[in-house]
Amino acid sequence: MNYQRFFEEAIDQLHAERRYRVFADLERIVGKFPRALWRSNGRTQEITVWCSNDYLGMGQHPDVVAAFQDAAGRMGSGAGGTRNISGTSNPLVQLEAELADLHGKEAGLVFTSGFISNEAGISTIARLLPNCLILSDELNHASMIEGVRRSGAEKKIFRHNDVAHLESMLQAAGRERAKLIVFESVYSMDGDISPIKEIADLADKYNAMTYIDEVHAVGMYGPRGGGITEREGLADRIDIIEGTLAKAYGTLGGYITGTSAIIDAVRSYAPGFIFTTALPPALAAAAATSIRHLKNSQAERDAQQQQATRTKEILADAGLPVMASQTHIVPVLVGDPELCKMASDRLLGVHGLYIQPINYPTVPRGTERLRITPTPFHSDALIAELRDALVETWDALGIPYGTAGQPAVAESERVIPLLVPKSGG
Amino acid sequence: MNYQRFFEEAIDQLHAERRYRVFADLERIVGKFPRALWRSNGRTQEITVWCSNDYLGMGQHPDVVAAFQDAAGRMGSGAGGTRNISGTSNPLVQLEAELADLHGKEAGLVFTSGFISNEAGISTIARLLPNCLILSDELNHASMIEGVRRSGAEKKIFRHNDVAHLESMLQAAGRERAKLIVFESVYSMDGDISPIKEIADLADKYNAMTYIDEVHAVGMYGPRGGGITEREGLADRIDIIEGTLAKAYGTLGGYITGTSAIIDAVRSYAPGFIFTTALPPALAAAAATSIRHLKNSQAERDAQQQQATRTKEILADAGLPVMASQTHIVPVLVGDPELCKMASDRLLGVHGLYIQPINYPTVPRGTERLRITPTPFHSDALIAELRDALVETWDALGIPYGTAGQPAVAESERVIPLLVPKSGG
Ligand SMILES: Cc1ncc(COP(=O)(O)O)c(C=O)c1O
Ligand SMILES: Cc1ncc(COP(=O)(O)O)c(C=O)c1O
Repeated sequence: MNYQRFFEEAIDQLHAERRYRVFADLERIVGKFPRALWRSNGRTQEITVWCSNDYLGMGQHPDVVAAFQDAAGRMGSGAGGTRNISGTSNPLVQLEAELADLHGKEAGLVFTSGFISNEAGISTIARLLPNCLILSDELNHASMIEGVRRSGAEKKIFRHNDVAHLESMLQAAGRERAKLIVFESVYSMDGDISPIKEIADLADKYNAMTYIDEVHAVGMYGPRGGGITEREGLADRIDIIEGTLAKAYGTLGGYITGTSAIIDAVRSYAPGFIFTTALPPALAAAAATSIRHLKNSQAERDAQQQQATRTKEILADAGLPVMASQTHIVPVLVGDPELCKMASDRLLGVHGLYIQPINYPTVPRGTERLRITPTPFHSDALIAELRDALVETWDALGIPYGTAGQPAVAESERVIPLLVPKSGG
Repeated sequence: MNYQRFFEEAIDQLHAERRYRVFADLERIVGKFPRALWRSNGRTQEITVWCSNDYLGMGQHPDVVAAFQDAAGRMGSGAGGTRNISGTSNPLVQLEAELADLHGKEAGLVFTSGFISNEAGISTIARLLPNCLILSDELNHASMIEGVRRSGAEKKIFRHNDVAHLESMLQAAGRERAKLIVFESVYSMDGDISPIKEIADLADKYNAMTYIDEVHAVGMYGPRGGGITEREGLADRIDIIEGTLAKAYGTLGGYITGTSAIIDAVRSYAPGFIFTTALPPALAAAAATSIRHLKNSQAERDAQQQQATRTKEILADAGLPVMASQTHIVPVLVGDPELCKMASDRLLGVHGLYIQPINYPTVPRGTERLRITPTPFHSDALIAELRDALVETWDALGIPYGTAGQPAVAESERVIPLLVPKSGG
């Protein structure tokens, strides 16, 4: 058996489907965000990043960077152990308290990523409930899908944001069965928002638990950055609120918040929490500083909303196919993986604007897009420059203009495919 | 249904089994390692950490901390995106090259943790091989077990380090079937080393792939810190070498190295790699600095081995039940979870020495232990202090003295139990 061949074939298949990914080699520049150095073929060039998930530029905020550097100077570059074996630092303890307060919950628990917080959180909670049925939105993030799978629980997928569909499933399961509804507040590829109140009402009616991913909302929505649940006054109606420290908060890590009993149980039973080195104290200190800042400052949120709205308007006015979005996310439809990649390459190579193509499997085939994330630091001048570059690119490549709705999505399209090599043995 | 009850019962069960874990709230002190501040009941006290996995104290090394702070000052506190969407920083690209070089492999791939590198690496590699059979050492780490499970592949567990048992399984599977052997170099709870050469020989004979976890060896063994595989000149005989940046290298993150095709395939197909924010540039820069330092400096490795040997000798001379260990890890047998916890509490409260009790499920029941990790910074005076404190504790609690061999371990004991609540519905 020639093992190497299977890996080569897996890569060949991606090339054949035009979805082989090349990562841009970047160096962010503190003080000049969203500018960055881009290295390619031995050349270094300054470009503008238009697809960062450092949504508010907090990753370069002077207080956040200072907290990071200060904690590293005093406590070092690593945690030195798992949470249980010497890795629980005081900044981490404080961060968990800060997060519990952010969402008005009894307790918080920090993981090394939002991915792991979902994987470990969902799977552990579902496993602790006897014969649990998981009800999962069809557009849930890969990390939530991992958590659902890992739980081993029965799952049912409801159509995206479709409360009637969800209700039919809850009804069929009955009040007596343990049920966990898992969904997101902001869906990051389309920028739409889920009907949280309706879902919470259904959870009450049918006695289900609720788990929400606020990864693309924390820091950015609600008067203290508590996410859409805070903005709508619904945080106390959701059992577990999950979020990340790696997007609007500009650092790294993920978390869940909930009752002390739930958090303590996940802390005690989740392998993905127990058997891994804790987040370094410097990251915890930086994240807590970022959260505290955004609890007290509305300026970043206002500026982000303003520049996002402006971007949508200006691109739409130019006839570009801006997809419907209720949030700060500005998806522009291309609809073809090769064109999408070419558009991205041209924007970077010719215009010095970096917007990664979003292709299958991150989004369904046929909805390939450029996903633009304006921040408070994307000025009006940068928005005008973006418009001109997009128009030039659309013309040069013959990409269709026009309005773009929100495309329907088949659940099967969302599953990460794993190559089953055609040749056996 | 009262959901809360299930979580409370799960916690009650841990209390009843005396394995409810309380995390020590610590603040490491750069320049004074292994000293740290310990907060408890509103009091803060300076203590000595004897159970850190910052094995060489690199987390406080001036060059590492400086690289961390400098990169944060220039590039900020976070990556700002997934690897594909704006999160690939130049320090990360350089780090991956550094890691490939460290193990003499074509390519390297960095993950947010060693846990995820195992989970994603093993599962993706096995899934890309048709009808793969995984052969897994019974004492493999929880993260490797997760990877094996997640792969969905058939698995067979061989007795710990038992090459005859492994061979019988390989033989039964036959040369034609795809086979992946997964094992560790240093097993961290017992401190023993696997028969890497024998396993590589078997892999050749039966045409199997090999995947080794060098998490507790990288930085510490081999003339450049390439681990046991480097020390024994066997790196080129193992297909995938996995490691962490969070132990001897003093930072955070994990990685795999191997052929370009394998690495590219995992990069392209592993959800745990694709769908999560990249490691911040500051961590990548610090890790690369640490790796480079330990490629060129033997002093830390020598001092660690010296102090570990000295610790073993001095504790054994005092009659303490030091368990057999071929490495820097010094396990001292207690053999009872409650006594183990009491010993740890007494060492901390009375003597100001922090050694976390290692109880089930991390180790099998009946082998509960104190796991001591001497570093280059644990001086002879600290070792003497440790001996005296252990003797006082052993006497006060009536823990048995005597020599301790390496206890036999049942595989079933290693599986993480998840509470199945006794009461239904
Ligand atoms: C909805 C959602 N949940 C979770 C995650 C994972 O968060 P993290 O990047 O902190 O791992 C992401 C993206 O990265 C996401 O988009
Ligand atoms: C053998 C082994 N592999 C992997 C890991 C996970 O590494 P990390 O802490 O970087 O997640 C650990 C411990 O944490 C380990 O002991």
